[in-house]
Amino acid sequence: MASTDEGSGGRRIGRRYLLGGAAAAAGLGVVGASATSGTAQAAVTALTAPAGGEVRRITMYAERLANGQMGYGLEKGKASIPGPLIELNEGDTLHIDFENTMDVDASLHVHGLDYEITSDGTRMSGSHVPPGGHRTYTWRTHKPGKRADGTYRPGSAGYWHYHDHVVGTDHGTGGIRNGLYGGVVVRRKGDLLPDRTYTIVFNDMTINNLKQGPDFEAVVGERVEIVMITHGEYYHTFHMHGHRWADNRTGLLTGPDDPSAVIDNKIVGPADSFGFQVLAGEGVGAGAWMYHCHVQSHSDMGMAGMFLVAKEDGTVPGHEGHTMKKSGATGKGTASGKSAAGEHAGHGG
Amino acid sequence: MASTDEGSGGRRIGRRYLLGGAAAAAGLGVVGASATSGTAQAAVTALTAPAGGEVRRITMYAERLANGQMGYGLEKGKASIPGPLIELNEGDTLHIDFENTMDVDASLHVHGLDYEITSDGTRMSGSHVPPGGHRTYTWRTHKPGKRADGTYRPGSAGYWHYHDHVVGTDHGTGGIRNGLYGGVVVRRKGDLLPDRTYTIVFNDMTINNLKQGPDFEAVVGERVEIVMITHGEYYHTFHMHGHRWADNRTGLLTGPDDPSAVIDNKIVGPADSFGFQVLAGEGVGAGAWMYHCHVQSHSDMGMAGMFLVAKEDGTVPGHEGHTMKKSGATGKGTASGKSAAGEHAGHGG
Amino acid sequence: MASTDEGSGGRRIGRRYLLGGAAAAAGLGVVGASATSGTAQAAVTALTAPAGGEVRRITMYAERLANGQMGYGLEKGKASIPGPLIELNEGDTLHIDFENTMDVDASLHVHGLDYEITSDGTRMSGSHVPPGGHRTYTWRTHKPGKRADGTYRPGSAGYWHYHDHVVGTDHGTGGIRNGLYGGVVVRRKGDLLPDRTYTIVFNDMTINNLKQGPDFEAVVGERVEIVMITHGEYYHTFHMHGHRWADNRTGLLTGPDDPSAVIDNKIVGPADSFGFQVLAGEGVGAGAWMYHCHVQSHSDMGMAGMFLVAKEDGTVPGHEGHTMKKSGATGKGTASGKSAAGEHAGHGG
Repeated sequence: MASTDEGSGGRRIGRRYLLGGAAAAAGLGVVGASATSGTAQAAVTALTAPAGGEVRRITMYAERLANGQMGYGLEKGKASIPGPLIELNEGDTLHIDFENTMDVDASLHVHGLDYEITSDGTRMSGSHVPPGGHRTYTWRTHKPGKRADGTYRPGSAGYWHYHDHVVGTDHGTGGIRNGLYGGVVVRRKGDLLPDRTYTIVFNDMTINNLKQGPDFEAVVGERVEIVMITHGEYYHTFHMHGHRWADNRTGLLTGPDDPSAVIDNKIVGPADSFGFQVLAGEGVGAGAWMYHCHVQSHSDMGMAGMFLVAKEDGTVPGHEGHTMKKSGATGKGTASGKSAAGEHAGHGG
Repeated sequence: MASTDEGSGGRRIGRRYLLGGAAAAAGLGVVGASATSGTAQAAVTALTAPAGGEVRRITMYAERLANGQMGYGLEKGKASIPGPLIELNEGDTLHIDFENTMDVDASLHVHGLDYEITSDGTRMSGSHVPPGGHRTYTWRTHKPGKRADGTYRPGSAGYWHYHDHVVGTDHGTGGIRNGLYGGVVVRRKGDLLPDRTYTIVFNDMTINNLKQGPDFEAVVGERVEIVMITHGEYYHTFHMHGHRWADNRTGLLTGPDDPSAVIDNKIVGPADSFGFQVLAGEGVGAGAWMYHCHVQSHSDMGMAGMFLVAKEDGTVPGHEGHTMKKSGATGKGTASGKSAAGEHAGHGG
Repeated sequence: MASTDEGSGGRRIGRRYLLGGAAAAAGLGVVGASATSGTAQAAVTALTAPAGGEVRRITMYAERLANGQMGYGLEKGKASIPGPLIELNEGDTLHIDFENTMDVDASLHVHGLDYEITSDGTRMSGSHVPPGGHRTYTWRTHKPGKRADGTYRPGSAGYWHYHDHVVGTDHGTGGIRNGLYGGVVVRRKGDLLPDRTYTIVFNDMTINNLKQGPDFEAVVGERVEIVMITHGEYYHTFHMHGHRWADNRTGLLTGPDDPSAVIDNKIVGPADSFGFQVLAGEGVGAGAWMYHCHVQSHSDMGMAGMFLVAKEDGTVPGHEGHTMKKSGATGKGTASGKSAAGEHAGHGG
C-alpha cells in the first residue's frame, strides 16, 4: 500500500491506535469490511487485523540507561524497558536500521520471524554491531499456505520477541539482564485487535527489570492483550487473578471445537513467549486484580503487580484514591512507536 | 433444581457417587439421557456430566492439624490435605460459608472460576478472614457462548484449584506449605464422568504434604480421573507408568481431528493444574504402576507412589499381600464432601 | 507382512532409509499409494507412514563406554549415546531381547507405549536385568479408535523415549546420567516421513552427554525431524534459530483450523519429550543456525550446537571450510539400526 506523509504518527480507530500511515489505512479498511458483514453495528463488532503485505522501515537504537541498564528505542534518548512493541501482520516485511549507541557490541535477534543468517544477530554469524555502528536487520513474515509437496505451512502469526545476543556473552546474557528485549506480535488476517496491549517480561527476579511489578490499567469491557515473555535464568509461573486464557496460538478459543485448555497459570522459562486477550473484568467486574509469578518466593520478593480494572467512571473498587491515567487518548504511546503498553510497561532512562 | 433433604449425602450411580440431592437428581437425569440414545445398555455407556445451573451452598473450615500442618474441611474436625475436591458443572454457583478456626488470618482463593474482587481471598482486597471469623465466598461458573460482539467466550470448564492467600505472606506461602489447598473440577455438559477421582498435589518436595507419595487404587477398566496440582517453590515433571493422557482441556482427545499431543510426562510449576482420565490398566493390564516426579533427585527423595490397578478379584500382580480397600462402596468419601479420591489422597489431623 | 531375508539392512526410498525387509516393503507400498493420488509426481509428494501391524524383534545391549559412560546398542561393542532411535508405526509390536553386559543391574523402561508390568523395567516390579543377564521386553502400540462404551481412544503415535530405571537408584538416576537413554518415534498412518531424524537430549548440563552440543547437518529443503528429550535434574528451554514448530503431537499443523501455537522455544523438564519436523532453511536459507538451551547460564556453559543447513553444493554460508558429510548415502545409519540421526547425535565408546 502507498505510504503517506503521516510518518510514524498514530490514528485512533475506535479505542485503538494503529501505527503508521499505511497501517492506519489498512485498519480503516478492516472497519469497513467488518461493517459490511452486518448492519451499521461497527461500534459493537470486534475489529480484526487486515491482510499483511506491507514493507516497513523503522530505526532502532540500543542505548545505555541509568543504573547500568540498557534499552532499545525508536528514537534517540527514548529507549525503554521493554523496548518498543513491534506489531506486524502476516506477509509484512520490516527493515530495521539499527544503531548501537553503546560502548560494547550489541545486536538484534528475533524469535519466530523469517530472517536470513545475516540478520541472525549473533557474533558467530557476524551479524552483530560494534559500538557506534549501524546494521539493517530484515525480518520477514509469511502467511500460512500449501507447499508444492501438498503439506501445510504454518504462518508467522504468534507472540514473539527480540533481544540482544552478544552483550556480556555470545548468548547476550548481559544485554538481556540489563534490559535489551522487547515484544513482537504478528497477526493473521481476521485476528481480533485489542484496545490495549501490555508487555510483561519476567526477567530473572524482576518484571520488566523492575523489582516491584508495574501496574496496568484498563476499563471494564476493554479488550486487553498481554504479551508475556520470560528471560534470564529462572523458571516462573505466570498467574492472573480473575482472568484466564486459552493455551493456544492466540489465547482465544477458535470456537466450541477448540480442545485447548483454558488456564490462568502457566509455567515459563527463558525465551518462552505467549500472549492472549481478556475482556477486562468480564464476569468478575472492576477491581485491583493481582498478576504475579506464582513461585512462592518470587511473588514474596516482589514479582507481582496489579491489573487495575476501572469502572467506566475511572474508579477502581478497593483501590480508592487511584486516578486512572487516560493514556490511550494521548497517542503518546504510538508516537514513540510503542503500543499503549509501553506507557506502563516500559521505563526509560 | 430444587434441593432435597438429602443434605450432603451421596448416591451411587453405577460405580459413581454424586454429591448432594440436586446433583444426584441431575446425575440420574444423565443416566436417563444416555440410555435413550441406545438400547438398554446404560451399563456400558459412559456417563456424562449434566448441564449446570444450580446454586449450591457449603460450609468450609480452615483448621490446624498435627505437626503444624493445616487443612480445609467441610465439617469441623475433618480437615484434610488436600482439602475436599469441589466438583461443579458449568453454570453452577457455589456459596462457601468459610470459617477460620485457626489463630492466624486465612482465606480462600480460587483459580479459574468467576468471583468478584470481594471473593478474591487476598489481604490487599480485604477478603481474608481473621481468626475465628466467617466470610462467604461466592464462586460462579459460566457456559461457553457467543458475546454480543460476535466473539467466542470460553466456558469455565477445567481442572482448577483453591488455596490460602494470606498465611505467612501476602501470597499464602505459609498456608500453602502447610496444606491449605484443594482441587476444583468444573465440567461441561457431556464431559465424561469418572468412576474415581484422585487429587495429586506436588507441594514443594512432598506429594499431598507426605514425604512418601501415597498409593491410589482402581480396578482394571475403571475410568480414573487425576487432578494434578503443583504448589510451592519448585518445578516438577509428573509421570505415570503405563498410562498417558492428552495435553488439552480434558486430558481426552475429542476425536481423530484433535491435534493435541498425547503425553505421559509433563513439566509443572507452582499453581499449575491439569487433569485427565485413564481407563485403569487399558492395554497394559493390572499391576502396581508407579507415578512420580521425574526430576531425578525428587523421585529419589520420595516423590513417588503407586497407582495400584487390581484385577477384578482385587489382587494386584507383583504386589501380593495387598488387599484392595472397597472404598467406593462405603460412601464415606462423599459423606465428607470429598470424592473417593479423598480417602487415599487426603490425610487429616 | 512377510519378512524377507534382508535382515536389518536398509533400503533407500527417495532420500529416506527404511528399516528391515517388511518395513521397506511397507514403505514401498506407501510410495505407490502416494503416487496414485496424482500424476507421476512421486518425487515431489511427501512420503507418509504406512499402516502398522508388524511384529518385530531386535536385540539390545547395555554396555559400559569410556569415562564411566554407558550406552545402549543394537550390536555388541556398538553402544552409543543416545541409544538407537526406535521407529514404529501404530499397531506394531516390538520384542527386545535385552542383554546387560555391565557389572550392575540395568533395565529398559519406555514411555508412551503399551507394556505389561513385566516389561516395566523397574526393580520394584522385578523387571530389571542383573549383570550378564537377559530379558525380553515387549512394547506394543495401538491405533486410535472407538471403545465399546463409545468413547475415543487415542493411538500410540508420539515422540517417546526409553531409559534405564535401576542403575544408581530405583529411578535410574545413575544410568540416565551416564547415557542410558534413547528416542522412540511412533507414527500414525499418513504421518509425514522425514529425510533425516536427529535426537537431541538435554541431560543435566549436557547435550547427548557432551559438554559442547553436537552439530547436525542438512541440505536446504530437506525435511528434518528433531526428537527432543530431556533428562536429569534441571529444567531447560529448547530453542532453534530460524526454524519453528507447532506445539502439538507432530509439531506440524494439521491445517488452518489447528489452533496450536507455533513456537521456537519450549520449556522442558526431565523425561519430557516432543518432536517436530522442519524444512531446513525454509524461508531463511542456508546457514549455520544455532540451537541451544535458552537458560542463559546453560547456553553460556556449552548447551549449544549448530544446525548446519547447507546449500545444494554442500557449503554452509558463514561456516566456510566445513564439508558436509554425505552421511545419508552410506546407509551406515540404518545398518546399525539407527536413523541418520545417530551418526551425528550418537557417540560411542
